[in-house]
Amino acid sequence: MTPDEFRRAGRALIDWIADYRSRMESFPVMSQVKPGEIRARFPAEPPQEGAPLEELLGPLERDVLPGITHWNHPRFFAYFPSNGSLAGVLADLAAAGLGAQCMSWQTSPAGTELEEVVLDWLRRMVALPDDFTGVIQDTASSATLVALLCARERTTHFSQARGGLCEETAPLAVYASDQAHSSVEKAALLAGFGRAHVRAVASDEANAMRADALEQAIAADAARGVRPCAVVATVGSTATTAMDPLPAIAEVARRAGAWLHVDAAMAGTAMILPECRPLWQGVEAADSLVFNPHKWMGTGFDCSAYYARDPQHLVRVMSTNPSYLRTAHEGEVKNFRDWGIPLGRRFRALKLWFLLHEQGVKGLQARIRRDLENARWLAGQVDAAPDWRRMAPVPLQTVCLRHLPPDISEDVDAHNLEIARRVNASGAAYVTPAVVKGVQLIRVSIGAEGTVRSHVEQVWAALQQAART
Amino acid sequence: MTPDEFRRAGRALIDWIADYRSRMESFPVMSQVKPGEIRARFPAEPPQEGAPLEELLGPLERDVLPGITHWNHPRFFAYFPSNGSLAGVLADLAAAGLGAQCMSWQTSPAGTELEEVVLDWLRRMVALPDDFTGVIQDTASSATLVALLCARERTTHFSQARGGLCEETAPLAVYASDQAHSSVEKAALLAGFGRAHVRAVASDEANAMRADALEQAIAADAARGVRPCAVVATVGSTATTAMDPLPAIAEVARRAGAWLHVDAAMAGTAMILPECRPLWQGVEAADSLVFNPHKWMGTGFDCSAYYARDPQHLVRVMSTNPSYLRTAHEGEVKNFRDWGIPLGRRFRALKLWFLLHEQGVKGLQARIRRDLENARWLAGQVDAAPDWRRMAPVPLQTVCLRHLPPDISEDVDAHNLEIARRVNASGAAYVTPAVVKGVQLIRVSIGAEGTVRSHVEQVWAALQQAART
Repeated sequence: MTPDEFRRAGRALIDWIADYRSRMESFPVMSQVKPGEIRARFPAEPPQEGAPLEELLGPLERDVLPGITHWNHPRFFAYFPSNGSLAGVLADLAAAGLGAQCMSWQTSPAGTELEEVVLDWLRRMVALPDDFTGVIQDTASSATLVALLCARERTTHFSQARGGLCEETAPLAVYASDQAHSSVEKAALLAGFGRAHVRAVASDEANAMRADALEQAIAADAARGVRPCAVVATVGSTATTAMDPLPAIAEVARRAGAWLHVDAAMAGTAMILPECRPLWQGVEAADSLVFNPHKWMGTGFDCSAYYARDPQHLVRVMSTNPSYLRTAHEGEVKNFRDWGIPLGRRFRALKLWFLLHEQGVKGLQARIRRDLENARWLAGQVDAAPDWRRMAPVPLQTVCLRHLPPDISEDVDAHNLEIARRVNASGAAYVTPAVVKGVQLIRVSIGAEGTVRSHVEQVWAALQQAART
Repeated sequence: MTPDEFRRAGRALIDWIADYRSRMESFPVMSQVKPGEIRARFPAEPPQEGAPLEELLGPLERDVLPGITHWNHPRFFAYFPSNGSLAGVLADLAAAGLGAQCMSWQTSPAGTELEEVVLDWLRRMVALPDDFTGVIQDTASSATLVALLCARERTTHFSQARGGLCEETAPLAVYASDQAHSSVEKAALLAGFGRAHVRAVASDEANAMRADALEQAIAADAARGVRPCAVVATVGSTATTAMDPLPAIAEVARRAGAWLHVDAAMAGTAMILPECRPLWQGVEAADSLVFNPHKWMGTGFDCSAYYARDPQHLVRVMSTNPSYLRTAHEGEVKNFRDWGIPLGRRFRALKLWFLLHEQGVKGLQARIRRDLENARWLAGQVDAAPDWRRMAPVPLQTVCLRHLPPDISEDVDAHNLEIARRVNASGAAYVTPAVVKGVQLIRVSIGAEGTVRSHVEQVWAALQQAART
């Protein structure tokens, strides 16, 4: 493809995306296709002959779009906000166009240095201490794995440089609330701790980790020779945005000599509002922290910010330095290949730069405040509706609710699962059901960039409608 | 940003990228900036007020571009080809514009199903057996970590579901050639095997793993209670594109009950040429294989293809299934979140689709053949030059050379390092020095999309020029 062919096809695609975003409200939020339906539209064999790229716009519209669940839809209330702002879209375009490999400083100095700049901007925006150093990871899952690997190596005094975990005699334990994200358990298993040493610490009635339960779990482990290795505190749990009490947890972790990792994947964005920062009071005690600008903030996926208090330790755990990767300026510059698992790295700093330039801190703050108000409004509606129950506090943008009419004859859990299914199948909105402490509830996670009050009114109406029929 | 503002800024950015690609040859290949130079161009504080995105094109050109090392430059001969084809650029744009999360089937069915389609296309293109099932990972580093985790869990009969590695008494060993990529050692350390159990198996004079040395290493370990867990065979080593003998290695691994992972990160692309496939004869015995279409093939980074022979085992190692991720159709569809480390996933299948549509298999084959011929031409030049030595066979597109004049008084290693430094500092080309078995050599890795014979002539002239002065 020549640059001029690219110009033509690129403009057509830009227009297609602009049109897609403009008419998004006309689509069902959740894709309505059946399993195998999209696959069947494609041949089994790859094309032998090349063809102009513009010819793909037809199949993109006809064969792919029906299989898209629209995460940027203003009536998307499922999972978590995963805003792919248009500024972030253009940043991804610029990154791909430049095609820079950002694994080492020398392989594209701007990749490394702009990443340093924007992660320090972000650190200031959420008022993290200045001894936190940031790096972009792909996801919170990977970032949490990195954190647990760092914890493992700190506790074992670098077993990886010797005989590895099999030669460690005392097992290592990881502690997180019973409301922590599944990626914590996954990371602990992959890091070799074993499921038998992953502790789901009891949470209180607000779904926040109980520091006393944490302390008891650690004491019980220590008494039988299991070493407390890492505590993962959740700031904004996935199901209900519960907030673990950081100061008390940090104190317990400190006394136990355990690594403290803070998972603020979704909620970190809220901390650009000074009025939200009390929610993560105590965060400065963390050894590591992850929050995802690709969620609520809107850089577009993937752009997960990992902050480390001791980058030298991180590099010691993650680095390799064969001759074909060695460059001039070693030691003088950062080589982010040594700050995470993958060697190759895209130029993701552009996404934060573009978004922050286009929105400014104030623009982002205004949007986040709007979402918080929308959540408070919905919480108020639920509280006022006699047949509905609000199932958790609403510190942020997620409202957990459950339909509970007094005269219900069927199973209440099944009834609520059916309400969610109906709303999603109608295409009117997309919500995620979840089970919290054995109770089926429906999560309404507010925060798509395009979601204004009327859309929240619509999902509330759709839920009520589904509950009636 | 409204869709219409996006249209305007997007067109401007498309034009900027087209211009950048058109004038690329005018730039020095390797960025010439000093450490800190790019960082100093940005303020310490993030912007408070938003501004039109078009205003970033100036700073992008002025402040970022000088810090870019141009991986798509036709005189880029460093590391490995990392082609960001213009078709791939547009696929990244489409993926960002759609903003689809491809973690589960339901979160965007087209994301999952198109990935199934194009990875099966790719499998056919390189003639892998039809019991290999593919999934996209970000990099070969992550893919190799996934492979070693699968190996670990197979050997330990799922220790992660019990007490983890600390409760395993016999250590696990990983075997790879002394020419294997650094990511193999990194993955083994992260997976908890310990450096003491990573075996660098001796390679022969062509830098290929010696199957007899592998057999001896495994026997020695077995004799002292170390369990042979995984063998990583390299098809196309990073330094010299050496080819490990797969049939012999596979037989040794099979007898030892060890997992066989094949790292064909760069060389996999060559296998779209039937005449290259003898190079990985025996690959059908692999338990897992990684090759990176984002390298030589040109999808743009990141798009690493991981093929598994036993996807159910992979899912068992990698899956989590909390209620908030559970969806209808579980069991009936693939949920690729359970096929790798990250939960969230971009719609990377578009890159393979766009590239294959635009180039066709035949277009890609013609380009790869061109690169192989260019490498043979350069190898011939080196062989014919009295003061130069070719340091390795040239089965693919990398030529390893060393300047060795008869009357040299200085240290030959330092002399060759200096030649590479001069070429890179001149901006005329970019080559990577490497140390292979204690000898400093210069790698000329051919295969940028825009590289034609005249560019290879130029790098050869630049090397000779640098050697003279």
